[in-house]
Amino acid sequence: MTLANILIDIIPHCGIIPQKGDNVVSYNFSAPMANLKPSAIRELFKVTGLPGVISFAAGNPSPETFPGKELGELAARILAERADIVLQYGITEGYAPLREAVAERLRNIVRETDMTVIVSGGQQGIELTARVLCDPGDTVLCESPSFIGALNSFRSHSINLIGIETDSAGIIPESLENALKSAANVRMLYTIPTFQNPKGVTMTLERRKKILELCKNYNVILLEDNPYGDLYYDNAPPDTIKSLDDTGTVVYVGSFSKTISPGLRLGYVAANASIVEKIVVAKQGEDVHTALFPQVLAHEYLTNYDFDAHIAECRSVYRRKRDLMVSACEKYLGADIIVPGGGLFLWGSLRDTDDSMPFYRRALERKVALVAGGVFLPDTEAVTPGFRLNFSMPSDEQIEKGIKILGELL
Amino acid sequence: MTLANILIDIIPHCGIIPQKGDNVVSYNFSAPMANLKPSAIRELFKVTGLPGVISFAAGNPSPETFPGKELGELAARILAERADIVLQYGITEGYAPLREAVAERLRNIVRETDMTVIVSGGQQGIELTARVLCDPGDTVLCESPSFIGALNSFRSHSINLIGIETDSAGIIPESLENALKSAANVRMLYTIPTFQNPKGVTMTLERRKKILELCKNYNVILLEDNPYGDLYYDNAPPDTIKSLDDTGTVVYVGSFSKTISPGLRLGYVAANASIVEKIVVAKQGEDVHTALFPQVLAHEYLTNYDFDAHIAECRSVYRRKRDLMVSACEKYLGADIIVPGGGLFLWGSLRDTDDSMPFYRRALERKVALVAGGVFLPDTEAVTPGFRLNFSMPSDEQIEKGIKILGELL
Repeated sequence: MTLANILIDIIPHCGIIPQKGDNVVSYNFSAPMANLKPSAIRELFKVTGLPGVISFAAGNPSPETFPGKELGELAARILAERADIVLQYGITEGYAPLREAVAERLRNIVRETDMTVIVSGGQQGIELTARVLCDPGDTVLCESPSFIGALNSFRSHSINLIGIETDSAGIIPESLENALKSAANVRMLYTIPTFQNPKGVTMTLERRKKILELCKNYNVILLEDNPYGDLYYDNAPPDTIKSLDDTGTVVYVGSFSKTISPGLRLGYVAANASIVEKIVVAKQGEDVHTALFPQVLAHEYLTNYDFDAHIAECRSVYRRKRDLMVSACEKYLGADIIVPGGGLFLWGSLRDTDDSMPFYRRALERKVALVAGGVFLPDTEAVTPGFRLNFSMPSDEQIEKGIKILGELL
Repeated sequence: MTLANILIDIIPHCGIIPQKGDNVVSYNFSAPMANLKPSAIRELFKVTGLPGVISFAAGNPSPETFPGKELGELAARILAERADIVLQYGITEGYAPLREAVAERLRNIVRETDMTVIVSGGQQGIELTARVLCDPGDTVLCESPSFIGALNSFRSHSINLIGIETDSAGIIPESLENALKSAANVRMLYTIPTFQNPKGVTMTLERRKKILELCKNYNVILLEDNPYGDLYYDNAPPDTIKSLDDTGTVVYVGSFSKTISPGLRLGYVAANASIVEKIVVAKQGEDVHTALFPQVLAHEYLTNYDFDAHIAECRSVYRRKRDLMVSACEKYLGADIIVPGGGLFLWGSLRDTDDSMPFYRRALERKVALVAGGVFLPDTEAVTPGFRLNFSMPSDEQIEKGIKILGELL
């Protein structure tokens, strides 16, 4: 069964069967949308629930880590006591008690001078920051490879992407400076300095300081995306770049998707107030405000339970799974791997090819889903021997069995 | 107490006090965002909770209509039984059972050939449709006055707005045709044909057919926004324009904000599949997907309770409030009013001035909040003697007392 077959079988048409009848007018789509494709990973996600498929493709946290029981009790209580508030419209900035709680948690990792706003998941924080600070045709620099959700969001606003070389210590300052010197209209550097997606590497403190200094000198905004910072399995990561920023150069995006639940769609942005004000205006036009009931639910969870203890539990769940996958790779897989110190992904590189795409296709035929590294490249024409494996979602048995199958293919 | 004072007092700074320090870098905001102001109504919304203020300003449904008890029971059950699913990432198109249920409900008002997608409130449906079909500098036609949330969303994408004249039967076809003939790069007509916000008027069936025909002839998309269609207090409104559309000219946006809860942020778009596909790609980059837990909650509510009976109850709550406000206006208010057949708003016009702004300011000084009609105009330089009063949120006493105060001011 090929990927195309699988997708054709399962993309839900939902009641009304779409037809492109002969009499339908022709549509002129906007310039950025005319050629943009759906994220290969979001599409793959539709496959991962099929029987017999072992998926290392998604970026889903493990349901094991969801505080379902606690949220259930809180949800019942909140709706019994405050339905008139939580079911009503809220203000765009976010539910004030949740903003306070987020600001309190951020005290150690962002500057006191920054303001917070609640967004509908970290993705919206990235997208709004780009919209507020970049015009079509502007350039955003990013790690190569990088998070496909961010890259596609930038593309959907006709923003040019230039990938910057990275090594085991993160972005290479010389490569960044070369791009800052030579590229036109650079407005922003997008980076995931901690347990980077997809490579899993973490930028050293020294690099963080250098990268920030470069952005400041070239008057380029540094967008620090930190969805995985709490999920470290060996040592705690270095200080966030935002905590080093005394000039409002950094926009910081955080998320509850990996520490409470992605299904609630809750993230936050911390930045200088004048940026936050613009983000709020842009957000008004996008979704008025983030769903209020999930915001209240998260706030009650943060204040009624020991969130730090919960995060520690998540770490121990994922540490075990990471170790399991690393062992399986060492045992079965003839590929070079980067052992991630945190996050949800392991990056591998094939040894005898430049392009992991055929490997990805053959794996899918054996019902093992992974992500070919090419989709993470800012340059859509480029290829890479890299591939990404997720260890948070599969069961122990699936990790063992799936990596063994991948090993057989190499 | 002036509006400015009130706003300064209550805009929540949330823990971290924003400062624009001397050492902060200067920001270059994107062209559309550099000058865009927050919606005057969203800002006013921050005032409406203050003690002693009677607010006719918001567009909030009455909490009386929220099925809080039912949703509370469902929420507890859903999280007890399916936390692993509802707290996880979902697909961008929306929770499949909710899409099915929406498609089923839409069968009578959209074409069979159309496809549905769940969005984070009707606002997102409007914004995504614009992003997918319009480039910066393109023109969108709309009623004048129109829904400020949509207008600001269009502005935030550098879309030009041209207002079309309306009368008691909706958009005047001759005015629309003149604009279609003369304006450059017209890509879309945005209309709320049923219980229009802010004027409350409903387009006749004859006009709907003519307007659709014109859009088809000029190859212009018709974006039909229908948040209030279920909330009729006299006769049911005419068929939706979408139901008359056999060429995929109409994009239809609906919402559960006024019939279940705005705090859940749930809306939907029904359109030709090729448009929906683009909307899904754009939505991936904006918020990945609409919060899943609220989607599951809404689906369970639709399938476990009698939703039509609930809507009938909403109608009876609002019919009474509408009648109360109309009576109070006739008794106290020396202004011309349009009696709305549905929706949440009553439009008034001052008799002896061109501009309702001074009236709005004087009313606020007497602690009665309304919306000066100028904010609804596509032309930001224009003025109007019109103003909008909301009757769904204020209590019976507030309606009586507030309209009396307004009457004293005239």
